[in-house]
Amino acid sequence: MDLGIGFLFLFFALANGQYLPNWDSLDKRELPRWYDENKIGIFIHWGVFSVPAFKSEWFWWYWQGSKEPDVVEYMTKNYPPNFQYAHFGPMFTAEFYDPDYWADLFQASGAKHIVLTTKHHEGYCLWPSKTSFNWNSAEVGSKRDLVGDLASSIRKRTNLRFGLYHSLFEWFNPIHLNDAKNNYTTQDFVRTKAMPELYELVENYAPEIIWSDGDSGPDYYWNSTEFLAWLYNESKVKDTVVTNDRWGSNGVACKHGGFYTCDDRYNPGKLQNHKWENCFTIDRYSWGFRRNAKLEDFMSIEEILKTIVETVSCGGNVLINVGPTKEGIIAPIYEEKLRQMGEWLNVNGDAIYGTQPWLFQNDTTNPNVWYTMKNESVYAILLKWSNDFVKVSAIAESKFSEVKLIGYDDKINWNPTADSIIIDTASIKPNNVLKWVYVFEFKNVITNNHAKKNFL
Amino acid sequence: MDLGIGFLFLFFALANGQYLPNWDSLDKRELPRWYDENKIGIFIHWGVFSVPAFKSEWFWWYWQGSKEPDVVEYMTKNYPPNFQYAHFGPMFTAEFYDPDYWADLFQASGAKHIVLTTKHHEGYCLWPSKTSFNWNSAEVGSKRDLVGDLASSIRKRTNLRFGLYHSLFEWFNPIHLNDAKNNYTTQDFVRTKAMPELYELVENYAPEIIWSDGDSGPDYYWNSTEFLAWLYNESKVKDTVVTNDRWGSNGVACKHGGFYTCDDRYNPGKLQNHKWENCFTIDRYSWGFRRNAKLEDFMSIEEILKTIVETVSCGGNVLINVGPTKEGIIAPIYEEKLRQMGEWLNVNGDAIYGTQPWLFQNDTTNPNVWYTMKNESVYAILLKWSNDFVKVSAIAESKFSEVKLIGYDDKINWNPTADSIIIDTASIKPNNVLKWVYVFEFKNVITNNHAKKNFL
Amino acid sequence: MDLGIGFLFLFFALANGQYLPNWDSLDKRELPRWYDENKIGIFIHWGVFSVPAFKSEWFWWYWQGSKEPDVVEYMTKNYPPNFQYAHFGPMFTAEFYDPDYWADLFQASGAKHIVLTTKHHEGYCLWPSKTSFNWNSAEVGSKRDLVGDLASSIRKRTNLRFGLYHSLFEWFNPIHLNDAKNNYTTQDFVRTKAMPELYELVENYAPEIIWSDGDSGPDYYWNSTEFLAWLYNESKVKDTVVTNDRWGSNGVACKHGGFYTCDDRYNPGKLQNHKWENCFTIDRYSWGFRRNAKLEDFMSIEEILKTIVETVSCGGNVLINVGPTKEGIIAPIYEEKLRQMGEWLNVNGDAIYGTQPWLFQNDTTNPNVWYTMKNESVYAILLKWSNDFVKVSAIAESKFSEVKLIGYDDKINWNPTADSIIIDTASIKPNNVLKWVYVFEFKNVITNNHAKKNFL
Amino acid sequence: MDLGIGFLFLFFALANGQYLPNWDSLDKRELPRWYDENKIGIFIHWGVFSVPAFKSEWFWWYWQGSKEPDVVEYMTKNYPPNFQYAHFGPMFTAEFYDPDYWADLFQASGAKHIVLTTKHHEGYCLWPSKTSFNWNSAEVGSKRDLVGDLASSIRKRTNLRFGLYHSLFEWFNPIHLNDAKNNYTTQDFVRTKAMPELYELVENYAPEIIWSDGDSGPDYYWNSTEFLAWLYNESKVKDTVVTNDRWGSNGVACKHGGFYTCDDRYNPGKLQNHKWENCFTIDRYSWGFRRNAKLEDFMSIEEILKTIVETVSCGGNVLINVGPTKEGIIAPIYEEKLRQMGEWLNVNGDAIYGTQPWLFQNDTTNPNVWYTMKNESVYAILLKWSNDFVKVSAIAESKFSEVKLIGYDDKINWNPTADSIIIDTASIKPNNVLKWVYVFEFKNVITNNHAKKNFL
Repeated sequence: MDLGIGFLFLFFALANGQYLPNWDSLDKRELPRWYDENKIGIFIHWGVFSVPAFKSEWFWWYWQGSKEPDVVEYMTKNYPPNFQYAHFGPMFTAEFYDPDYWADLFQASGAKHIVLTTKHHEGYCLWPSKTSFNWNSAEVGSKRDLVGDLASSIRKRTNLRFGLYHSLFEWFNPIHLNDAKNNYTTQDFVRTKAMPELYELVENYAPEIIWSDGDSGPDYYWNSTEFLAWLYNESKVKDTVVTNDRWGSNGVACKHGGFYTCDDRYNPGKLQNHKWENCFTIDRYSWGFRRNAKLEDFMSIEEILKTIVETVSCGGNVLINVGPTKEGIIAPIYEEKLRQMGEWLNVNGDAIYGTQPWLFQNDTTNPNVWYTMKNESVYAILLKWSNDFVKVSAIAESKFSEVKLIGYDDKINWNPTADSIIIDTASIKPNNVLKWVYVFEFKNVITNNHAKKNFL
Repeated sequence: MDLGIGFLFLFFALANGQYLPNWDSLDKRELPRWYDENKIGIFIHWGVFSVPAFKSEWFWWYWQGSKEPDVVEYMTKNYPPNFQYAHFGPMFTAEFYDPDYWADLFQASGAKHIVLTTKHHEGYCLWPSKTSFNWNSAEVGSKRDLVGDLASSIRKRTNLRFGLYHSLFEWFNPIHLNDAKNNYTTQDFVRTKAMPELYELVENYAPEIIWSDGDSGPDYYWNSTEFLAWLYNESKVKDTVVTNDRWGSNGVACKHGGFYTCDDRYNPGKLQNHKWENCFTIDRYSWGFRRNAKLEDFMSIEEILKTIVETVSCGGNVLINVGPTKEGIIAPIYEEKLRQMGEWLNVNGDAIYGTQPWLFQNDTTNPNVWYTMKNESVYAILLKWSNDFVKVSAIAESKFSEVKLIGYDDKINWNPTADSIIIDTASIKPNNVLKWVYVFEFKNVITNNHAKKNFL
Repeated sequence: MDLGIGFLFLFFALANGQYLPNWDSLDKRELPRWYDENKIGIFIHWGVFSVPAFKSEWFWWYWQGSKEPDVVEYMTKNYPPNFQYAHFGPMFTAEFYDPDYWADLFQASGAKHIVLTTKHHEGYCLWPSKTSFNWNSAEVGSKRDLVGDLASSIRKRTNLRFGLYHSLFEWFNPIHLNDAKNNYTTQDFVRTKAMPELYELVENYAPEIIWSDGDSGPDYYWNSTEFLAWLYNESKVKDTVVTNDRWGSNGVACKHGGFYTCDDRYNPGKLQNHKWENCFTIDRYSWGFRRNAKLEDFMSIEEILKTIVETVSCGGNVLINVGPTKEGIIAPIYEEKLRQMGEWLNVNGDAIYGTQPWLFQNDTTNPNVWYTMKNESVYAILLKWSNDFVKVSAIAESKFSEVKLIGYDDKINWNPTADSIIIDTASIKPNNVLKWVYVFEFKNVITNNHAKKNFL
Repeated sequence: MDLGIGFLFLFFALANGQYLPNWDSLDKRELPRWYDENKIGIFIHWGVFSVPAFKSEWFWWYWQGSKEPDVVEYMTKNYPPNFQYAHFGPMFTAEFYDPDYWADLFQASGAKHIVLTTKHHEGYCLWPSKTSFNWNSAEVGSKRDLVGDLASSIRKRTNLRFGLYHSLFEWFNPIHLNDAKNNYTTQDFVRTKAMPELYELVENYAPEIIWSDGDSGPDYYWNSTEFLAWLYNESKVKDTVVTNDRWGSNGVACKHGGFYTCDDRYNPGKLQNHKWENCFTIDRYSWGFRRNAKLEDFMSIEEILKTIVETVSCGGNVLINVGPTKEGIIAPIYEEKLRQMGEWLNVNGDAIYGTQPWLFQNDTTNPNVWYTMKNESVYAILLKWSNDFVKVSAIAESKFSEVKLIGYDDKINWNPTADSIIIDTASIKPNNVLKWVYVFEFKNVITNNHAKKNFL
């Protein structure tokens, strides 16, 4: 990529109605429709941090940056004094990494896209990067192109899109630290590392999501808008790619870019006027694998589904994180959650995929009920079963032809009251597919005040 | 232990009514009552095999004994040519080993005793054995007494008894191999390794279970009866200790000793006339941890409970195996099963602990129902819920005062027919504690032909 | 270093009589006098290649570049298949590195300066380079600034100057390989790695020798002349620094720069018209340490002294190489040669240090005699003792007052013949200091045709 | 080896004139003649201690036994806290071990036999011992029979005999420590380890020297005399084997057994009335390799030859130690000394091999002269050259026909005085073979009082 032709390109951009490298122009781009329809993605945090697999993927920083006592003590007790973080690199062996198995699992989970960390703040690249000599997976550790191998496997499955996470900054890279010390008036790191990596990733792997992170430094430092203009105008994925909003620490997040991620685990609980994403991790305390995680550290399937329902109801997507082991295994406890999610979505997916927020999100009187809508149906999603009856109010103002419990073949009984609908659950018999979270479908809904939100 | 006084001891034994070192005498000993009452134990397979953690705890044998292609290939691909099994020893670091956490978990699982591998067929001792120089946990790997540390933690919890597994033979120990080559006419290995270890274990840790294994070689080779006579007559655990039946490959198993284990996963499905044990492992394919185990390799809680119910109904105990990691972690997927088991036993334990087999084991017409009994109650344990009704026949010939669904406060309805009892399950409403396997308690049962089995 | 001010600087250069970034100008600089006077330096090859310490410091290239069968076989036999060169990095531990001991040893050897490899073709930096993230000694291996520590120790000794070797190119650095593929029309590697390193080295360590190497690529690619102009005009060592001639593969070596090294082990055997250096290594087959070197692979002290004498006689300097171990030890066999050299120079140094080539170099009739001169003395250096007499011819045309055998207190006898001087060695008795190579000093020499060469 | 037949064997022994297992009988055995004739052997200390290769082969003891501060500090600085000595085992890789090269080198050194450590006090066996499971070279480290491989190579060379060192005790073996705690009243360690090893070594490798060491414990504890009786009566090497005297800490050394070693570096300086051996090590501070040894730590060739001369003159043999690296290399500094020794012996061997002590050992007036004799010649060995003359007195009382300087073709001049012989060295011209130590041969010596010592 010859940056030198940037100026020239600018003129053409103006002439051709292409995106200009500024937010006014870039923000006008419509998010490709597939992203909103997908709703559910899998996030994968994998890197050298998966070797110590202790505390979290921020291990290096906690050890030598903020010097958290537990991490410092762990290193003191278990490693020789001259041990350095880079020494973990050769141990990132990935000997059991089977990207076909991963792809099958992701497909079974009901997710529609995945996002893999190509490089976290540690700077280690999971592909043979040209600008990360001896600090990438082909030269240190597994001797493999971990990104490329997964790309192939994902693309062999229909209905799965491939996305890539990339951290702009690196905690300890002296070139970046020097730019930072210069108040970002120098861009050595951007020119020699961050940007070449992004272009390389797009050229090599044609990701349909660029999930940028680690944007400590302003957008003009990172050349973010230049990259995005190229991505939207010129790149091989220009028509389908989506990106997020972490492109500069000067107030870009939650304000510019593609979908908004705002903060990790962003879950506003009400409808947003811009497409957003809630990324969260099944291990509550870490995005990367932890060898000493306890059972209680993992979200239950009920919690996961609750988060999905709340998020989708309010117009968000979820990106659910798993942390594979250094050997390349998605540990059974993660696999279980993903397969349970898939089991539920296999039954109840109509209430999630391709839906839009409805007039109401959380039921006005029943806090365990959240709504989505698709075509003429409104879905009332119940987070907690009741043996007697379920009362919902938000739908009471609408007309509908029928109420159905998804996954339950028999008819169910319901009665309107003045301001609510009472669904008789006492008479519903358990079966194999009714579990965790329950979806009542109201068919042919007509609502006076139907202000549904569409982000497309 | 001076073996020289053995002859002297024999005379005293005759005089004092003590056990003689032969099966006639030893088999007369009554099994201490606690063992039958406990019903449920946890088996822990941990050793150097937890380092490769590949294929199974038989890794070494598969690699260099039977030369299984997958194991040979794994080693060729991932290790240098001169790598030897003993090289895994230093990596058995156990840095996260927290025996208090283990003990709490075992207690929460509802198990009443645990059995830890002190030495598997690899010969590596998990305690500072005097006869295993530089091949034990204090000198290679963690620098800890892994057995002693768990003993302390287990003993701090009431209602948990501590047992030890010990493999008599060792695959590759040349002293044993030489004895074997001599058709067991020499006993060098027995005198210098196998027996000293067993005495040392008893002296050091006072285990209440000696779970012998690896008895390739006849009982007279192993000096098994001498050891057991000492154990029953002289040792510090003589009054409470129980042992199993793997004390000689010349037809001892399933015929002599304490409880019978017969084969791994022994589950005869009908009442036995001697106390027995079904040891099985949650990872269907391995007793030791496998780094690349998949979710589907693990038994579901339903399968585990089914095995428990079948076993206890037929007079057996279960010993449920978990394989910790080399770091000392019981992986979350194992922890989950154990906690689910505890959750169920917390509600339904009355139908398991301290019970005896009833007149019938498996219901005569309903294969999903198994029986236990305690005091005046008979427990019909249902492995599969039905939304309509449950029909059981075995109890129809008995009189009883009441039927109760354990974990369900309301009265339930039932009706006798000519040859069965029909329980109305259609009217039973789900609740938080009814799950997986369901226990109907028939109270004040009077049975004409009440031939209940008692092993004590 | 802001390269942007380069243009500005050019104008000043013209105005101030400073060096311009071209060879015409740079070649006009006089070599600082100390370098020619020193005559003898120590070369130190140390790096990650000292870890495998097999075949030579070109190990990586032989393994994965040219794939020499012996190196490939060594790796196959001793390492796992996924082993990579970078994995050797953490093993470069330098735990016995004692730069004070080194400095004392170098001083005892009679050398007057040292040159340390700061970065060989492998790209690993022996100092905490800002542009070699996770591939330098502070982050991988010893956790030390190996260059800085030696700089301090050397500088604490008077009469020792500190020089640095630096390889411009790197065998496997993809940025350099890409520039090469582009026929050196791009300079990404030069801008981001090679040049920043050189400036950093000068700024940090103020080396008085820059010993450039690995100049595969033309001088205009490397920006060599710009760097040298800065070095000579602006740097903190501008007055004393010397450099060599390896600044571009387009015919620079042996033609431009400071002293000429031409090829490794350059030893032309006759007087040169430009100051030159003969760098050679005591282990004939390698500059880096070899763990499996045999005694016969090392030069004897006689060979070393012969090379010194030939070189100095013809106007060259020697740079004698040692290869320390990965632990930081200069192996005893090297130490021995260095101390022997020091022992000899301690006696005979007058014939070496500060000398100039004489009218003749190799004696016209006695090939074992080489000449140097200093002040009014001419030194005839005899490589092979004779028990009878030594005949030399070159000096016969000159007048001199006296002949002395250095290290021998007594008078010695000599006689002129028509065309030679015959020195009587039969009567010379052995003593403790006469060994290996013998120096006859001819005092107050007056030569008609005294065209001595002075490079200063 | 069935020890049970010991009693039976005793009767035969009496009947057949064989050696009885007591010192009276064993000490009557004549030392096989070859040993005294050989004079010079090579000692090889190799083991797991060659991996840390720090301080000395007593590393383990210094670290965890006596806790020497320098060793403790070295471990603290360079290894993780849970590191154990056994962890060094896998690193004893011997990848460059070429026993043919060793054998050639030993032959070139002029030595006539070698003695290899098969097991030092660490207990690690350099052969696949049957009684050292997972603590021997076939199972930990190199995967080779290091002893057997050298045996083959040595035996392929004529004039080299093969001997084995074996440490009876082991610092940290709990079985031995327990016997010691029992005041050697138990012999568990002897029966299960020490003795089986010795028998195994003899059976497998037929060593012609058994160099016993580590005899902490009395001879009756070690069953030393039983072993020696078997060795002398029954073993395959019974006719040629020699042993030393370290067979019991109750006053056996220097009093019983074969040749006397008394202490390490035993060099009494006067004639002994029993064949003895001076074992010493070229690295003054260690028998095992030290990675951080300095040049000055090594004996010079002059010191080595002086020790040989003094020892042989007084009737001793020397056993000169080298410590190979963990890779299997005899470092060049050792190789140099060995080749220098061979160079000297090649010229002067007549004064050493097959000689006997003469009437005098050290010259009465010239402390730099020591004597040996063979056939009709007496050798006066001069440790320090003099440029003028050499005066010796001891020979003055004898008659002789001629004086020759070995390695010098020309006649030399000498004159008798009243009480001495004055040899004119002023007229002797240096040559290539006269170096280090000089031998004057007095031919056809007739001495009145010729009390030469013969040990055979």
